[in-house]
Formats: sequence, structure tokens, C-alpha cells
Amino acid sequence: MKKVGIVMGSASDMPVVKKTIDMLGSLDIPYEVHVYSAHRTPNEASNFSLYAKERGFGVIIAAAGMAAHLAGVIASKTTLPVIGIPCKSSNLDGLDALLATVQMPTGIPVATVAIEGAGNAALLAAQILALSDDALSKKLEDKRMADREAVLAKNAEIEEQFNN
Amino acid sequence: MKKVGIVMGSASDMPVVKKTIDMLGSLDIPYEVHVYSAHRTPNEASNFSLYAKERGFGVIIAAAGMAAHLAGVIASKTTLPVIGIPCKSSNLDGLDALLATVQMPTGIPVATVAIEGAGNAALLAAQILALSDDALSKKLEDKRMADREAVLAKNAEIEEQFNN
Amino acid sequence: MKKVGIVMGSASDMPVVKKTIDMLGSLDIPYEVHVYSAHRTPNEASNFSLYAKERGFGVIIAAAGMAAHLAGVIASKTTLPVIGIPCKSSNLDGLDALLATVQMPTGIPVATVAIEGAGNAALLAAQILALSDDALSKKLEDKRMADREAVLAKNAEIEEQFNN
Amino acid sequence: MKKVGIVMGSASDMPVVKKTIDMLGSLDIPYEVHVYSAHRTPNEASNFSLYAKERGFGVIIAAAGMAAHLAGVIASKTTLPVIGIPCKSSNLDGLDALLATVQMPTGIPVATVAIEGAGNAALLAAQILALSDDALSKKLEDKRMADREAVLAKNAEIEEQFNN
Amino acid sequence: MKKVGIVMGSASDMPVVKKTIDMLGSLDIPYEVHVYSAHRTPNEASNFSLYAKERGFGVIIAAAGMAAHLAGVIASKTTLPVIGIPCKSSNLDGLDALLATVQMPTGIPVATVAIEGAGNAALLAAQILALSDDALSKKLEDKRMADREAVLAKNAEIEEQFNN
Amino acid sequence: MKKVGIVMGSASDMPVVKKTIDMLGSLDIPYEVHVYSAHRTPNEASNFSLYAKERGFGVIIAAAGMAAHLAGVIASKTTLPVIGIPCKSSNLDGLDALLATVQMPTGIPVATVAIEGAGNAALLAAQILALSDDALSKKLEDKRMADREAVLAKNAEIEEQFNN
Amino acid sequence: MKKVGIVMGSASDMPVVKKTIDMLGSLDIPYEVHVYSAHRTPNEASNFSLYAKERGFGVIIAAAGMAAHLAGVIASKTTLPVIGIPCKSSNLDGLDALLATVQMPTGIPVATVAIEGAGNAALLAAQILALSDDALSKKLEDKRMADREAVLAKNAEIEEQFNN
Amino acid sequence: MKKVGIVMGSASDMPVVKKTIDMLGSLDIPYEVHVYSAHRTPNEASNFSLYAKERGFGVIIAAAGMAAHLAGVIASKTTLPVIGIPCKSSNLDGLDALLATVQMPTGIPVATVAIEGAGNAALLAAQILALSDDALSKKLEDKRMADREAVLAKNAEIEEQFNN
Repeated sequence: MKKVGIVMGSASDMPVVKKTIDMLGSLDIPYEVHVYSAHRTPNEASNFSLYAKERGFGVIIAAAGMAAHLAGVIASKTTLPVIGIPCKSSNLDGLDALLATVQMPTGIPVATVAIEGAGNAALLAAQILALSDDALSKKLEDKRMADREAVLAKNAEIEEQFNN
Repeated sequence: MKKVGIVMGSASDMPVVKKTIDMLGSLDIPYEVHVYSAHRTPNEASNFSLYAKERGFGVIIAAAGMAAHLAGVIASKTTLPVIGIPCKSSNLDGLDALLATVQMPTGIPVATVAIEGAGNAALLAAQILALSDDALSKKLEDKRMADREAVLAKNAEIEEQFNN
Repeated sequence: MKKVGIVMGSASDMPVVKKTIDMLGSLDIPYEVHVYSAHRTPNEASNFSLYAKERGFGVIIAAAGMAAHLAGVIASKTTLPVIGIPCKSSNLDGLDALLATVQMPTGIPVATVAIEGAGNAALLAAQILALSDDALSKKLEDKRMADREAVLAKNAEIEEQFNN
Repeated sequence: MKKVGIVMGSASDMPVVKKTIDMLGSLDIPYEVHVYSAHRTPNEASNFSLYAKERGFGVIIAAAGMAAHLAGVIASKTTLPVIGIPCKSSNLDGLDALLATVQMPTGIPVATVAIEGAGNAALLAAQILALSDDALSKKLEDKRMADREAVLAKNAEIEEQFNN
Repeated sequence: MKKVGIVMGSASDMPVVKKTIDMLGSLDIPYEVHVYSAHRTPNEASNFSLYAKERGFGVIIAAAGMAAHLAGVIASKTTLPVIGIPCKSSNLDGLDALLATVQMPTGIPVATVAIEGAGNAALLAAQILALSDDALSKKLEDKRMADREAVLAKNAEIEEQFNN
Repeated sequence: MKKVGIVMGSASDMPVVKKTIDMLGSLDIPYEVHVYSAHRTPNEASNFSLYAKERGFGVIIAAAGMAAHLAGVIASKTTLPVIGIPCKSSNLDGLDALLATVQMPTGIPVATVAIEGAGNAALLAAQILALSDDALSKKLEDKRMADREAVLAKNAEIEEQFNN
Repeated sequence: MKKVGIVMGSASDMPVVKKTIDMLGSLDIPYEVHVYSAHRTPNEASNFSLYAKERGFGVIIAAAGMAAHLAGVIASKTTLPVIGIPCKSSNLDGLDALLATVQMPTGIPVATVAIEGAGNAALLAAQILALSDDALSKKLEDKRMADREAVLAKNAEIEEQFNN
Repeated sequence: MKKVGIVMGSASDMPVVKKTIDMLGSLDIPYEVHVYSAHRTPNEASNFSLYAKERGFGVIIAAAGMAAHLAGVIASKTTLPVIGIPCKSSNLDGLDALLATVQMPTGIPVATVAIEGAGNAALLAAQILALSDDALSKKLEDKRMADREAVLAKNAEIEEQFNN
């Protein structure tokens, strides 16, 4: 299976990215994790992206905060699908990172998920890889079912408590 | 090749969606276009999504404005990757549609592009399909190169005019 | 009396919804509480709404956060009045949920209350049901009077402390 | 049938309110229209609300822009359901009116619809009145069906044009 | 000297209003404090305003949060200058109260100060009353001087610490 | 009577300020108009403010856009009441000017009116001056009455047209 | 004298950048203009920046809209001062570009000017270069004086018209 | 070497400004620190700026919150480059200070850094001074390299932990 590349702009984004890693792990999707700053290590960020396809990656997930340029920098160097996770920093509640990630000009898309939507970034990567991987597709459908069951279990509990 | 499903919430989104259609056409990617409102025709929207995989779709693009629920409704019924285009309506400059499209809860991702980022929605779909289609991948790389050339041509023109 | 259906998108919305439940309880209005996610259990959410009228509900209250589609999904399946409570999640202070709840397109209204305005959702439901229930109408007027008295008592206390 | 009271804060809100009037008219719902400013004619606004119930109104719709206090002023004088339409003025795209209408404190709800959501204000009023009026309820369901048909017709047209 | 009327929409605004009271006290300006909700006690709020001039008030300060209508309601019943303090509630950081207080339509001004700018509300009231009170005017100039001295003292301290 | 000083940051603010001038003129309040930029002519702006009291001004109105510092600069040099009009420039719809005008730190209040609320700035100045001018106070009450009549006339017209 | 490098992300930013060019021209500051997209021609953008110092540039001005990464990309490759001009695109009034330009992480500053503040970008570059160029410094002071005179002339005109 | 002048609007901004001081110290750049409020000590703020050039300053850094006028006031009195740090106060997350600092009108630029971007303000000042100071330029390049190494070290650590 193609691997998922996970790049975060700063090691301080690790608590967010951990959820991406865990979700990919739970789906047995191979991945690599890197800390490459779009601004402090632009060459490493660019090179990772430039050679990602030939190194066997199928999707890249980029997580960054503030003027979050990382996903755009990655996306400018590859035609692999790039998923952006806007991270919240100490001000503006992540709105800066969301706009800096999603408002890409025509030509270079970034598939943006919610502010700190790290689990969904992994699921979106999985959905993309599952297009040519029936076993993964089955896992995603099973996970949907399990999520559904979890909601229904909560519902049963709350119905039990309140609806009499 | 797998098809791209394009769903818009209202026929009034057509001027935006037209750019998606044109971009897909320029890449020879097969597509279907539908008008299904998440609120006025919820069954049609759901059913399109529910059977999209078995009907040969690989990616679904959903375009909607205001409280833009369409992409989320589509995404809740399939594990295919779903791309959301937030459309601008007469107020709030598309911020409502952006937040209603991108801020999905864990479990159901929507790959969100820029407000009215219709061309990028098509390119993102193409990047996803190109993972298992080398010819398409080559086209995307050629397009990148052509985009690059177009910028450089503009640059040459402006350098000519100003830098003497 | 017709019942009020309360649906929350996630069990984590319970602290908000509890205020709705308590307010309805204090007015002796019958209710049912459910956890149905617009995205993780779309069928259950739709079906609840679809059969709500014939099951004796008069109003449905839907509480959800982030890209809060729940009220819209409910509203698309019934012509009963649907009240939306935008819930605050960890980012953006509930602005995303407010816009995703209130900015509904023509045809499918959602009666939106304040961010986490759970008490008012119950009162609005009561006002609607009171149109054909004089006893309830009387209770609402009594509650208004009591609220007024409570403010005046606070006023008396503060006047006592400061105005000499 | 109970009447719907429509109050606008300024005659300049008429283009918005006209859509409310037309929608109510199309459903044969009786209504009265008034221009009462919360600030320039506070007594008239208050008195309209105070006597609305005994004068046979079932719902009041209030439309106002900027620091849109009208719906709140009306709501403070009645326990009838009050629907607020935030109107856009020359600045801030209606965000000021939306927040001033929807963010009501506990005790005095305002059922807020989208910025300039005038048609939906009428439909919400109709849904409320339909709780005790089966003929109106039937009309609302017919309208839903007609809206659905209109979307499907548009869809057929666009499918015809693009999907071959 | 004319008195300053201080009205807060809820006793929970007291921590903010306390700064207004303290500032007025430090300038020996007579005041009265009241809790009158624009929505829960509209008559008391209106009546306070209606008779404020003949009861010897010169300025009214109104503090309220969320859909902060109080200052507008007060202003609609008097031609005395009305000062509005937008209070922060649990969501949106006071932006809702700011817009609901400041965006008044032509005819009924509210002199708005910063979000929770309670000290400045008192100072503005004092500046207004000082137009016909030279002793108060002198006090305000002395306070300015004292504020200036306080900044310069801090400056001296920090210069001492850092500039060698 | 004390005069009103009107200062605008740029001659391009004249269309807004014209409404202030006209309103003051209609109330026979003497005024002076100046163009003093807080940034391009800081000395003139400061000096105007510094000598305003002794030159017979009672209130200063400052209109400016973008990073609207003018009202604050004026306010820092006088203890006269200063009214700020945030002007809209080509971007951000006046939100920048509103925040830059209203969010003053404790010690230096600016009485802020709505974005482009030029008429209300004049009325607020009049209300302040009317505290020691019964004739002006009477004019303000008459104007209130006239505004009320104008709304009621509009109301009569619209009632005539729609309520039969 | 060191040159100013002007880079715009798209030729469509030319109307904004033209004001930068004109201002630099009026101060006889040498410049070069280029169109290099951070995303479509990342290598050209990086290389321009990488060699800017040795090619005799003293300051770089970068203008871009939407997810405006250009200034950050340029800044990551040089220790020359980089000035960012956020450009307005068709949505969000330039707020996206402002946040994407100004919210840079520690280590890589971008000196951000106002949305479309193209003239000020040139002036800021001039102020930087003037630190080691007395003639330029003199020109800037003369321009300040001229700006001051222009405001005073407008003031005289308006005083003439209104203050009699 | 020319000195950097650091001015903060209030001693409460010291925790932010401390990072500026530390960064300048680490680069051996001489500096002076002052507390001058644009509003409470306008003369001191103006005078510091007016004589900054002849007193040997090359750059001025101004830090302020709320309606952050300090950088603009400083900039209006000098043609030295002025860097603005928007500080967060208790409300609005620094958005008010950002807009009040960056949205300067043409003629008087302020080089704005991120909200609380105090380290970058120092680095930007250093970049400006380094234009005529090769040793400082070398230090900045060394710091870039060190920052790069720090990211790569973090990367190595995280790769070690996750990529096996």
C-alpha cells in the first residue's frame, strides 16, 4: 500500500498530529512522520514533497498553525493529494491557520479539514487510498458502522435515563 | 477511469460549478452533474451518495452556499472522498459556507477547497484519481508545467515593461 | 399535549441540552431526548424527523456544534417547527455552529436561538405549543412575571447597597 | 386562523419584508404589516406586541437591521412566538443585525432566521400555525413537494445538458 | 450636580459595573445604580429613562451583554446622553454586545465605549458633566496628570532596569 | 453656546462628515470643520484639541477610517467629550475603524457611534450641549417627535397598502 | 543604492503593485519587478530571494492575495527585510491575505502593511534604505512635509467653505 | 551601531516585550526600553520619536494593545522604520490591536508583525540594521542555521520515535 506522509510545521503540533497517527495506525495504514517547517526548513519541506511520489507516498498530510503555509508549500511541489490541518495557536482560535490553508489559488489545491481536525485528515487519506484497496475500503465501512453503533449506544443510554 | 460526481445544492451555483466541469473536461475525466439540495431533495442527495461507489464514481464534489450542508450530507453516506466547495451567497462573503463545509466532526471528513475554489476542486479530484492512473498523473504534471510557463510568460512581459 | 423532541448531535452536547430538559420539565411539557448525529447516524436522524408528526411531536429541538447540520437535516424531513441550538466546540466560540444553523436557504427554516441558548430553545418550544394550550400559556406568563420579580429583587438588593 | 403580525423597523426594510408578505399570501395566511421602530416609536412597538395575543395574532415577525433590537423589544412584551429577520444595512453584511437578533438572554427567545431570510420567516410562522391547522399543514407539505419538484426539474435540465 | 444613572441588564454585570461606580466615586459624582433588564423588565428600564431628566440625572450609563439592547432601549426614551458598555458573555468575546450597542440607527445615538470599558464610561460621563462644572473639570485634568505620572513612574522603573 | 469641533482625518471623509454638519446646522449649533490627519498633521490635530476648551468648544467629533487613530489622538489632549465616527474605507467594511476607535484604554474615553454614524455623532453632541441649554433640549425633543411622526406616517402608508 | 525587489504572486496584482512602483519611482529608488507565484513557480520565488542579497537588493516587497504565502516563502530564503502587501481577492475583503501574511512564526518576520497598502510598502522600503542614505532620508522628510501641506491645503479649502 | 528603541504603551505589555529585549540582547544589538502611552503620555511618545534619529536610533519597535495607536503615533513623528507589535488584551484575541496597528493610511507605514510577535519584531529590526552591518548579517544567518538545526533535531527525534 502507498504510505501517508505526515508533516508538521513544529514539534509543538505533535498533540494534534498524534490523533492522525493513531487513526492511521488503527487502520493499518503505513505512514512516516516528519517535522519540517515551511519557513525554518523550506528545503527539507520542499524536498520531502518533491520526492514523495517516487518514495511511495500516496497522500501527504500537513499540519501547521498561524500563517500556515506548510500545506501550500508541500502542495506546490507534488501532484499527490495534500491534506491540510489548520492548527490553533495562542491567538485567533485557528482562524488564521484555516484561511492560510484553505484559500489556495487555482492550480494548487489543499484538501482542508477542520481546525485541529486531525482524525479526519487520517480518514480522508484513508478514503483516498481505499479507492484502490478494497480491504481498506472495507475497514472504513466497518469504522463507519462502529461509529454509528457508538452513537446509538450513547443514545440508548440517554433514552434510558430521560425518556420514561 | 472512475467518474467524478458533481452535485450542487442549487442551480444558481452553476456559474461556480462550471469551472469544475471545464477543468475536469480539460483533463478528460468523466463526470456527472446533478442538482440535489441537501434540504429540498435530501433523499436524492443521500441516494446519489449511497450508490455512488457501485455506480463507478471515485470522488464526489459538492458545491453549496449559506449553511452549506450538502458536502456533509453526501459524506455521511459514502466512504468515497468528498470534496466541498463553499459558495458565496449574497451575505457574509462565503464565510458561512466555508465554516459549514470545513468544520466537520471526526468520522466524516470533507476535503474543503477555497471559497468558490471550483477549479481546485476538480484538480484535487484529478490528483486523487491519478494515484492509480499514470496518464492522468502525467496530465497533471503537464498542467503544472503549463501553469508555471504561464506565470513566467507574464513575468517576462512585466520584466520587459518595468525592469530597464 | 404534543411532545417536544430533543435531538443532540453528540452525547458531549448533554451539558447544554440539560438546560433545555430542565426548562421543559419545569413547564410540565412532555419530551423525548435522543442522540442522533447528522453525519454518523443520518438515517436515525432523518427517520426521527420523518415520523415525528405522526408520533405526536409538535416541535423538535436540535443541538449541534461545529458544522452544525443537525437542525437542517431534521428540518428537511418535517414541516414541524424545528429549533436549532448552536453549540460551542473547542474552536471559534460557536460562530461556526451559529452560521451553520441559522443561514438556511429559503424553503427549510430553522428557528435559531443564541449560541448555547438551551433554555430559550425550550421556552420557544413552549411558546409555540402554548398557542393551543391556555394552561401552558398561563405558565409562560407566570414565568415571565417570576423572571421580572427576580430582576427586581436583585435590583432592590443592589439599590440597597449602593444608592444612599 | 390566527394572524401573523409583521413589523419592520424602517420602511427601508420593505424589499426584504415583501418576500415575507408574498410567502404568507401564497399560503392564504392572514397578516398585518406595520412599521414600528424599536427606537423611534418604542411605545407603538411595545403596544403592538402587548395586545397582539388578544387581537388574534399567533406569531409576530420582526425585521430590522444594524443594532437590530426590534425582535427583542417585541419579544419582551408577549409570550407569542417571535421570529426575527436580521436585515443587512450598508456595512458589516448583516452580521451586526444577526448577532443583535439571535443572541438573546435566557427568558426571552427570538426565533432567528438567516440574514434577509424573509421567506423562511413566513414559512416558520406557517409551520407554527399549522400545528393546529391541518389544511395549512397540508399546504406546507405540498409546498415542500413543489420545491422538491422544482429542484428535480432543474436537475433534469442540467443533467440533459451535461451528462451524455 | 446632575446625577449619573447606572443601569445594568443583569446583576451578573456587577463586576464590570463596579469599576464605573468606583471611578464615579473617586470623582465625587453622585450616582444611582439599578438592575433593569431591557427584556425581563422593559417597563422599569423605559420608565427609569423616561423620568431620568426630571429626576435630576444628566447622563445614563447602560451595561449589557449578548444582544445588548439595554442602552438602545434607554436611549429611545430620553434625550439625555446615554453611554453604552458592551459586556462580554460566555461566547464571542463581547463582539455581539459591541455591535448591538454601537450600531444604532440615525436618531438615537448611544455613546459606546470599549468592551467592558467600565472605567471609561464613568470618565466620559464626568467629561460631559464637567462642561458646566469647573471643579469637576479640574479633577479630570488632575486625574489626567496623575495617570501621566503613573506611566512615567513605570517608565522610570523599567528604564532603570533595562537601559544601562 | 459652546461650539462643536468637527475634525476629519482626510478630505475623503467629507461625504460622511457632511451629514454631521447638516444635522448640527438643522439644530442651529455652531461648529467648525477641519481636516487634520492624526498621522500626516499630528501637531495640528493635537493643537486643535489642546486649545479647544479655551477656544469655546464643548464637544469634538472626530471622523476617520482604517487604523482610525484620530479620535484617540484628539481625546488624549483634552478632557472635553470626544465623539468618534468610524469611517468605512475600501476594505473590511469599517470594522478596522470601529475597533480602532472604540477599544480605547482606561483613562481616555472616546464616545463611539456606528460605522459612518455621522448624523448620530451630531445628535450626541447636541444631547451633551443640551444639558445646559433648554432651548436645544427642546429642539431635540421636537426632533424625536418629528422622527416618530415620520415613522408613523410611513406606517400609515404601508398599513393602507397591505392591511385590508 | 541597494535595489528594491518587488514580487507579486500573480499578474492580476499589478494594479496594486503599480502604486508601489510609482512611489519608488517618485523617490528615485531603483527596483526590479517580477511575477513569481509561491505555488506555481516556487523555485523562481525561492531563487530570487536566495540570491537577492548578492544581486544588490536591500529590501524585498511581496504582494499576494488569498492564502498569501509569497512573503513568507521569500522571507524563508533571505535575511533581507521582507515587506508583505496583503491583496484583496474576490472574497473575504483581504482578511485571509492579511492573516496569511502577518501571522508569521518566530524566526521569519514579514513586515506587513495594510490590505492593499502598496504605497506604504514602498515608503517602508525607502525608510529602511534611508538609514544609510542621507539624500533619501531628506526626500522622505520632504515628502512628509509635502503630505502635511496637502492636508493643510485641503483643510484651508474646507475651512473656507464651512467655517464662517 | 544604531540603537533600537522599544516603546510599550503600558507596563503590562512587559511580558510580550521581554521577548523582544531578549532577542535583541542575544544579537548584541543595543536598545533602550520605554513605557510611553500614546494616550496617557502623548508628548513623551511624540518626543521620543521626534528626536530618535538624532539620538542614534535606527529602528523603533512599538508594542500596544486594544485600539493600538502607539506605533502610528510614533511613526507620524519620524521617518525611521517603525515596527508594530499588536498585543492581545482581555477581549477579541488581539484582532483589535492588529487592525489598529496594520491598517495605516498611505504616507505613514508601520511594519506590523504577528499578534504578540515580539521575537520577530526584534529580528526584523536586526534585519534592517544588518543592511549596513555585515557582522550582524552573519549573526542572523547563523541564527537561521541554528533554527534550522533545531527543527531538524526535533524531526530526528520524532522520526526515531514513529518511523520504523
